[in-house]
Amino acid sequence: MAKKNWNVGVIGCGFMGRAHSNAYRKVANFFDVPFQPVLKAVCARTRADVTAFAERWGYESVETDWRRLVERKDIDAIDICTPNDTHKEIALAAAAAGKAILCEKPLARDSKEGAEMVAAVERAKVANTVWYNYRRIPAVTLARQLIEQGRLGRIFHYRAQFLQDWTISAELPQGGTGLWRLDKAVAGSGVTGDLLAHCIDTAIWLNGGIDSVTAMTETFVKERKHNLTGKVEKVGIDDACAFLCRFGNGSLGLFESTRYARGHKALYTFEINGEHASIRWDLHDLHRLEFFDHRDEGLTRGWRSIHVTDREMPYMGRWWVPGLQIGYEHSFVHQVADFLEGLAAGKPVAPTFAQAQLTQQVCDAVLQSAQNRQWVEVPQR
Amino acid sequence: MAKKNWNVGVIGCGFMGRAHSNAYRKVANFFDVPFQPVLKAVCARTRADVTAFAERWGYESVETDWRRLVERKDIDAIDICTPNDTHKEIALAAAAAGKAILCEKPLARDSKEGAEMVAAVERAKVANTVWYNYRRIPAVTLARQLIEQGRLGRIFHYRAQFLQDWTISAELPQGGTGLWRLDKAVAGSGVTGDLLAHCIDTAIWLNGGIDSVTAMTETFVKERKHNLTGKVEKVGIDDACAFLCRFGNGSLGLFESTRYARGHKALYTFEINGEHASIRWDLHDLHRLEFFDHRDEGLTRGWRSIHVTDREMPYMGRWWVPGLQIGYEHSFVHQVADFLEGLAAGKPVAPTFAQAQLTQQVCDAVLQSAQNRQWVEVPQR
Amino acid sequence: MAKKNWNVGVIGCGFMGRAHSNAYRKVANFFDVPFQPVLKAVCARTRADVTAFAERWGYESVETDWRRLVERKDIDAIDICTPNDTHKEIALAAAAAGKAILCEKPLARDSKEGAEMVAAVERAKVANTVWYNYRRIPAVTLARQLIEQGRLGRIFHYRAQFLQDWTISAELPQGGTGLWRLDKAVAGSGVTGDLLAHCIDTAIWLNGGIDSVTAMTETFVKERKHNLTGKVEKVGIDDACAFLCRFGNGSLGLFESTRYARGHKALYTFEINGEHASIRWDLHDLHRLEFFDHRDEGLTRGWRSIHVTDREMPYMGRWWVPGLQIGYEHSFVHQVADFLEGLAAGKPVAPTFAQAQLTQQVCDAVLQSAQNRQWVEVPQR
Amino acid sequence: MAKKNWNVGVIGCGFMGRAHSNAYRKVANFFDVPFQPVLKAVCARTRADVTAFAERWGYESVETDWRRLVERKDIDAIDICTPNDTHKEIALAAAAAGKAILCEKPLARDSKEGAEMVAAVERAKVANTVWYNYRRIPAVTLARQLIEQGRLGRIFHYRAQFLQDWTISAELPQGGTGLWRLDKAVAGSGVTGDLLAHCIDTAIWLNGGIDSVTAMTETFVKERKHNLTGKVEKVGIDDACAFLCRFGNGSLGLFESTRYARGHKALYTFEINGEHASIRWDLHDLHRLEFFDHRDEGLTRGWRSIHVTDREMPYMGRWWVPGLQIGYEHSFVHQVADFLEGLAAGKPVAPTFAQAQLTQQVCDAVLQSAQNRQWVEVPQR
Repeated sequence: MAKKNWNVGVIGCGFMGRAHSNAYRKVANFFDVPFQPVLKAVCARTRADVTAFAERWGYESVETDWRRLVERKDIDAIDICTPNDTHKEIALAAAAAGKAILCEKPLARDSKEGAEMVAAVERAKVANTVWYNYRRIPAVTLARQLIEQGRLGRIFHYRAQFLQDWTISAELPQGGTGLWRLDKAVAGSGVTGDLLAHCIDTAIWLNGGIDSVTAMTETFVKERKHNLTGKVEKVGIDDACAFLCRFGNGSLGLFESTRYARGHKALYTFEINGEHASIRWDLHDLHRLEFFDHRDEGLTRGWRSIHVTDREMPYMGRWWVPGLQIGYEHSFVHQVADFLEGLAAGKPVAPTFAQAQLTQQVCDAVLQSAQNRQWVEVPQR
Repeated sequence: MAKKNWNVGVIGCGFMGRAHSNAYRKVANFFDVPFQPVLKAVCARTRADVTAFAERWGYESVETDWRRLVERKDIDAIDICTPNDTHKEIALAAAAAGKAILCEKPLARDSKEGAEMVAAVERAKVANTVWYNYRRIPAVTLARQLIEQGRLGRIFHYRAQFLQDWTISAELPQGGTGLWRLDKAVAGSGVTGDLLAHCIDTAIWLNGGIDSVTAMTETFVKERKHNLTGKVEKVGIDDACAFLCRFGNGSLGLFESTRYARGHKALYTFEINGEHASIRWDLHDLHRLEFFDHRDEGLTRGWRSIHVTDREMPYMGRWWVPGLQIGYEHSFVHQVADFLEGLAAGKPVAPTFAQAQLTQQVCDAVLQSAQNRQWVEVPQR
Repeated sequence: MAKKNWNVGVIGCGFMGRAHSNAYRKVANFFDVPFQPVLKAVCARTRADVTAFAERWGYESVETDWRRLVERKDIDAIDICTPNDTHKEIALAAAAAGKAILCEKPLARDSKEGAEMVAAVERAKVANTVWYNYRRIPAVTLARQLIEQGRLGRIFHYRAQFLQDWTISAELPQGGTGLWRLDKAVAGSGVTGDLLAHCIDTAIWLNGGIDSVTAMTETFVKERKHNLTGKVEKVGIDDACAFLCRFGNGSLGLFESTRYARGHKALYTFEINGEHASIRWDLHDLHRLEFFDHRDEGLTRGWRSIHVTDREMPYMGRWWVPGLQIGYEHSFVHQVADFLEGLAAGKPVAPTFAQAQLTQQVCDAVLQSAQNRQWVEVPQR
Repeated sequence: MAKKNWNVGVIGCGFMGRAHSNAYRKVANFFDVPFQPVLKAVCARTRADVTAFAERWGYESVETDWRRLVERKDIDAIDICTPNDTHKEIALAAAAAGKAILCEKPLARDSKEGAEMVAAVERAKVANTVWYNYRRIPAVTLARQLIEQGRLGRIFHYRAQFLQDWTISAELPQGGTGLWRLDKAVAGSGVTGDLLAHCIDTAIWLNGGIDSVTAMTETFVKERKHNLTGKVEKVGIDDACAFLCRFGNGSLGLFESTRYARGHKALYTFEINGEHASIRWDLHDLHRLEFFDHRDEGLTRGWRSIHVTDREMPYMGRWWVPGLQIGYEHSFVHQVADFLEGLAAGKPVAPTFAQAQLTQQVCDAVLQSAQNRQWVEVPQR
């Protein structure tokens, strides 16, 4: 029996456009999804680029004006893969048009924009999600399951870091394609919205809300050539950001992100320490979860390196056989699979805009604390 | 400009049928291949199964008799994903029909069958390859590049192992779907053809031909219920196999495979030690390569853990960004990409049937040595 | 030719008394020290204990009153292995008596006491050192050498943690033998003086002075039975402490310590990220140093795991052969060896009291910041 | 109450002389041994050397003729730390003189010599042991405990390797001080007696007797200058040796050792796979044991990295505190402690000469198999 089609319109054909396109194309091969995703249209400003992209990925049509895409009747869902400064405007239009919305992270440049977006989707009652894809790395999902089962007991500590090294060279320009993440006007912030946002999203998911923060940011390279103006301009973003925090559950948090940690390309790690057990994970070996259970007998107690590939592991029953690892891109496939399940069931799929807004609020508090050198309370929605 | 289509007919819709189908579907999204693979037809004995498979993967048609598929004029290439006992017959027919052939490993149940297959494709002058996919894990390809550049100097040692633990239970039956690998009549051998064949293929590729072997096999569980007869029958396969060997280049080899190594799901590892440098790799963390170079200065000399994700790494420029790992299935995509390049260029793509036959000959020598408890010389084609 | 004797009087026969005694006994077997340490006397309050200790370790005599030991003419050096609340008083008396002083870390309960101690040894012009032994783990010394050679370039980040899990049980009492570290009156602080002090000492040594801090502390178990009073009393120490800081060289620092990190016994780790290279180390595998050099060619660039056992490694030429690791206790032997060299040369041996006082000042600033929730500037001596 | 002294006479003051001297000096500081070892005398041919050694280590006297030492009435035990070609003669004399004997491994150059030595100590009824020190690395002792408790179930596989890289240079001479291990007349064999002997001793201890072997050896550098003759001479030793074997318990074994594995200094590893659980260990991180238990629940099953430092671990209650690792030399201390316990109890302490002879017999079978290219049965004493 043929499934009902689900027509997606993707806006943006950069790195995330590829990752999402791949997910839409693959999901029904591996998961028994209730709808068949159809790559209905892709939109980007340059016709040549978007046409080539459409051809490569099998999109049925192209647009060069996102407003036209949003208005199309044959589109069920809008996927926002554009730079941060456009998220709000597109999301508001898509919500108004009654489309389901899948928005790249961070939700917006700041929590003010985010609040408008949350209000819009809630008003329009459209399905919505934000691509905090790391929640759906099987090892990370497993971490959540273990925590939900209460295995850790009272939580004392949470720490996370996201370390990269790609902007160390002062010769690297800012702005424009591929480098908009260094342009504050477009990105909203630097590593805080780009990297820490991932850490915060996972942390809230695994350990609950963050109450208060004290933070520090730094911009190591103060000026860079701007690709759009051709001039050397002040760099507005944070190159590095670290903060301490207190969670609502009484545990202490330590977060750090930077693009100046030589030797690390995408080292997102987290660790959580509870009364009985601890868990840690590392994006550079994403298919492993480390688990320590103090209740194991003393003679053989140790950190367990769980190779998360067995069929009983989250999502893994859909892929290959035990011992064979999956990679980064699969997290997006999982998010599409879950989103389609939610659509069919009429249930929200985490993280919704509202949940992503919690991360946005922490980011804002962090940036504010870094500026005024004070502890800042995080608004609890 | 539209690419010319390349129509594939896949025989078999088990584990390998899925892995190959995924590769055909993905390759043109990520690689600039000279032909567009088209999933023209899939064949399996049971109509319901093959129909469901075709629907899931988007095959245009189904067959239930492989002979019909091989005869179809609209098929350019035959992909053999069936159990080992059918490889020869299908390959001979496909060659006679002038099809390109992609055959799952091992090439055949033994080198006698293999020899006929090599003769057939060479006579028919059809493109041919065997899916020793691990050659195209980027870290493994990188190992080959480093060796080819002469960085290791004179080679002293090569060692490899492939450890699994899935057949330890004596309750596991043999024979039939999913378990034909335990049935000697179908598989030809046990771990030797299934696991050691991978190790041998990589070894020959990285370190050249093997001259002589002394081997040992064991069948730990002597009898198992046979799924097809319903009776408890003698187990004919080797549950474990190890051998020592001498390579043509004067180095010593040590190989082992088993399905009785508790704690290992698919731990394929190899290590090569040269005068100047050493390399090791491990399928359980397939995106890393370990490299030791004695010419590094003493104070900072150590094994380097290369996270093989940078764009300059083999194949990796086609995927994501540095730090983001790929998985098992990508090796198949790479093999399709290379095969299509070879087709366009009119050049053979390794490993060809003839190259896979070298592995077959080592396997035969190993099994013979295990039986007669003598060193056995490997025929050098 | 017989060496001149160097007569040591050790005060305290607990854990550190053992570690130091072992160092004095071993040093001349492995190092060509200019003096021969003689275990002249050991002092502790309980005669039975100190007598047994003296017998086990070969001390020539015992004392039960440290003041008598300090007054003895046959003692060249006083080694203070007692709880923190006695450091100052003993050190002042020993300085007044003209003895060389080796004091366990932290220097004192706070920087006020520390300042008096520094003044005393400087006034008395006696040789002095504090047992921040981790500086002399060969891998850590190697880190310092690599940094001094300028290999890292401009430094962006420094992070360190010291994680333990031994006080999680609320049943654990505070106070008295073995548990004085949980008694604020005796220890001065909790993890800050006990664990973070190590991290700070190494950090200052490797990365220079710390300018300002923002910190957070927590006492997870608020009340514990006190061993000396037998009553349940408020716990005054910090169970966990984390802080962010800025170093004088412009780099950012992140520090954390706790006794509530399940799964970690003594996980002291540090990492330093420079423009060109990064280094990390871990006390749980203390014989290894991880080093990443971005100037390595791309194809083989990776974190190097340096097994610090070769003869050219710091101190290692004195021990066994390459590949054979040493352990924790050896760091104390190295410190004695260096101290004796310094004595012979008439040169101070780091860390002196004055250098240890820098750590004390950071600790004080950290505790103050945790209390007043403000950034605190660290006095620069 | 003073312990009875136990007067040791050590023959040989090279690497092993140091390791043993350290053990005798330290043991009573950490272990409650029933006797107090006294460094009564050390013997070596060159008076200047042995005198310097005696001074450094605190030996009461020196000898330059081992026969004189063996005859001394004030000596309770003879420790043989000389090259292999002298073991037999010294042991026979020491046994005849009624001394306890501690002999460096391997027991002898071959099993013929070994048999005479076993006969001698059994005839003389003197306490005897061979320094296969790796049995008493706490992690290795723990492995034995876990196996004895039956946790692994039926054993399928045992594999071990001992990899070094120190003789790769063809410029390295053979013979004489420090290099006698390359001189077949002195050493008896190359890596087989030097390195594989360790692997075999542990294997027999953990997994029982070896029945039959098929082996391969190689001498990569055929000629080296001989330090004693000054001439380039044929190299008689095996540079590398590997063998397959069958254990008496039905499991399969795989062993390898070499001095030509670039990147490995003393990488002795073993792994044992049982029906229920597996264990592996690695001398380069000797304070860790890896343990996998299939009976752990699926979601958190993984290799456990046991940091063998807790007080309940073998021998570790005598050292420092959890988290603080010991090193190579401690294994010798443990052996002395156990030996003295055995002396007091009148019980043999493993490995005795008779047990070490089992290893010798496997070595002989291995070398014979490598020569005649046949499977060789190992004599079962």
